[in-house]
Amino acid sequence: MSQNRRQFLKTTLMATVGAGLAIDNIGAVQAPSLFHINRLVGGESHLKIRFFPYELKLNHVFTVSSFSRTTTPDVQVEVEYDGIVGYGEASMPPYLGESIESVMAFLKQVDLNQFTDPFQLEDILSYVDHIAPENTAAKASVDIALHDLVGKLLKAPWYKIWGLDKEKAPNTTYTIGIDTDEMVKQKTQEVAGKFKILKVKVGTDHDKQLINAIRSVTDLPIAVDANQGWKDKYYALDMINWLKEKGVVMIEQPMPKEQLADLAWVTEHSPLPTFADESMKRLSDVSRMVGVFNGINIKLMKCTGMREAWKMVTLARALGLKVMVGCMTETSCAVSAAAQFSPAVDFADLDGNLLIANDRFKGMVVENGKITLNDLPGIGLKKL
Amino acid sequence: MSQNRRQFLKTTLMATVGAGLAIDNIGAVQAPSLFHINRLVGGESHLKIRFFPYELKLNHVFTVSSFSRTTTPDVQVEVEYDGIVGYGEASMPPYLGESIESVMAFLKQVDLNQFTDPFQLEDILSYVDHIAPENTAAKASVDIALHDLVGKLLKAPWYKIWGLDKEKAPNTTYTIGIDTDEMVKQKTQEVAGKFKILKVKVGTDHDKQLINAIRSVTDLPIAVDANQGWKDKYYALDMINWLKEKGVVMIEQPMPKEQLADLAWVTEHSPLPTFADESMKRLSDVSRMVGVFNGINIKLMKCTGMREAWKMVTLARALGLKVMVGCMTETSCAVSAAAQFSPAVDFADLDGNLLIANDRFKGMVVENGKITLNDLPGIGLKKL
Repeated sequence: MSQNRRQFLKTTLMATVGAGLAIDNIGAVQAPSLFHINRLVGGESHLKIRFFPYELKLNHVFTVSSFSRTTTPDVQVEVEYDGIVGYGEASMPPYLGESIESVMAFLKQVDLNQFTDPFQLEDILSYVDHIAPENTAAKASVDIALHDLVGKLLKAPWYKIWGLDKEKAPNTTYTIGIDTDEMVKQKTQEVAGKFKILKVKVGTDHDKQLINAIRSVTDLPIAVDANQGWKDKYYALDMINWLKEKGVVMIEQPMPKEQLADLAWVTEHSPLPTFADESMKRLSDVSRMVGVFNGINIKLMKCTGMREAWKMVTLARALGLKVMVGCMTETSCAVSAAAQFSPAVDFADLDGNLLIANDRFKGMVVENGKITLNDLPGIGLKKL
Repeated sequence: MSQNRRQFLKTTLMATVGAGLAIDNIGAVQAPSLFHINRLVGGESHLKIRFFPYELKLNHVFTVSSFSRTTTPDVQVEVEYDGIVGYGEASMPPYLGESIESVMAFLKQVDLNQFTDPFQLEDILSYVDHIAPENTAAKASVDIALHDLVGKLLKAPWYKIWGLDKEKAPNTTYTIGIDTDEMVKQKTQEVAGKFKILKVKVGTDHDKQLINAIRSVTDLPIAVDANQGWKDKYYALDMINWLKEKGVVMIEQPMPKEQLADLAWVTEHSPLPTFADESMKRLSDVSRMVGVFNGINIKLMKCTGMREAWKMVTLARALGLKVMVGCMTETSCAVSAAAQFSPAVDFADLDGNLLIANDRFKGMVVENGKITLNDLPGIGLKKL
């Protein structure tokens, strides 16, 4: 802002504050707020953070191996600067080790008040990352809120800031849960018209039965996640060859993360691209995946958020790895954050917000199976 | 923009155009332009590119090994969208293989008119890169102009868009040319007060004499560039050990790029960090530098521009490599573009604009030896 304009606004402010009015930065007349006063008279603003627990209610009982649940613990975060609010979220499926208590305890230590420039994401997020090890979902919640804020300050969505074409966002997979043949067929029929690619968790004794049940009602491509389920490399490869015949297009984590050599062997012989999931979390893991998998699955709650995720995309591409983006059960907040870089990935598994009954936002939506980004700034949220 | 607001603006425009006035997107009343008309009535804008040769006049005769010159061939580029202009530049020191002719021929093939969204840098720059191999300076000129444009559209400088703190920009080195002892001492005395770190080209028979001449007048840290000058690894290591004693802080390309094993051996034993220069150009070269050098030198004219440069920074950091940024003799345009990511590097050699007599811009400046970025959007240029 030029001196003249600043002086003009200062004078105008003084006049308008008295009249109960202020001029904001796009020239519209509004009620005065600290935001405007700070900005116009050059007072220094600081970042503020707020957060509260938010229990996600699941539409259906969620079953992973030996475990069932009807809710997911979650913490909602807001970061405010100059009257503009960015939204973030931490989702904590219990098997990942974080909880509402751990996230709240972590966030209480996050002193954003020391920062006066939200654009300095490298420094701010490095500070957050160094508060304590792990706590990746808690860190992601701050990262997402800051990205939403900075995008709003730039008046641009992140896919645009990152130079991506939102039309290139892929179809998202939709997961068909493990169930009886009849239920699997019924669920598949329900969603087959709405999605262009399905996802199935395998790695049980009934893998073929499950796939056959789906195939009896649809020809849609299928992505499979073995969740480390196969322990023998020959069995894993046999299964992958069979899955390929059945129209499966990719396979996540075919074997346990400890069996690196076996995973590398499976990847070498697999007719389908393999993706690392349990084998990796963060940027520092990516280069070790070369030769072990064909690609990586990036999840915001595991990698500390959008900034590190985007670095992981860059690194993976440079190392010749494919990329997929995944999510937890979470609101449209974290899902829309992850969707911002989806135009740069090969596969997307962003159905987490479709699984909950109490979403707080409208953001990225799935239209005809495709991730559809809006033009709203930041991560593209409208509060419901 | 909502339909209502669009309709409102359309109606207002129709009224104001008749009156010789239009309302721009921040609500200020201005003279009408194609920019506003396009934007307000939803007409589709296209990217336009213009370019012209521009001979850089050097302040001093420039000598590299067997070669002297008083000018550097250069092409200036402008990319326009909706009335906003982004500036770019290709600088072609003859030893890199590009020329005014080759750059003009390449740029004539660049059809930006097919693009209606300058934000889609990934697609646009991928298109430019695939027009022909090599031509890295020509490609960089388009990349820089597009970044300047997009930054202006976002109303933010790139260091900010990249999440960096401009205060962390490093000191730039300033090169003391090879000359007689007396001249070296005189030149060093002239610049010692203005810079915090000097740069010296070594790799001749007179390396020690040159360093001693500088050391007789200043204690400033020195960066050295051996330009592949040493052919024997033991000699190279001896020299590096000696240089370390003399207050040298880093060494570029101690040996020929073909001698990979020797370079790796020197890096392993060197008390100073080694940086790849002639050994690398682009993103695809970076991972091969691990174990051979401690760091990489990124030059926009060799790596096709800012987008790839920023990816190289990310990749290098993830692989544990240090990063430096260098330049050619060039105007403040390309130097300021490179300076945008300088807060993320370990060493900067951005003195190219200080060597010419006919700069077209004011941009990044060196204050007390430090790279000092301004708050102007894009790459931060003011046309002179």
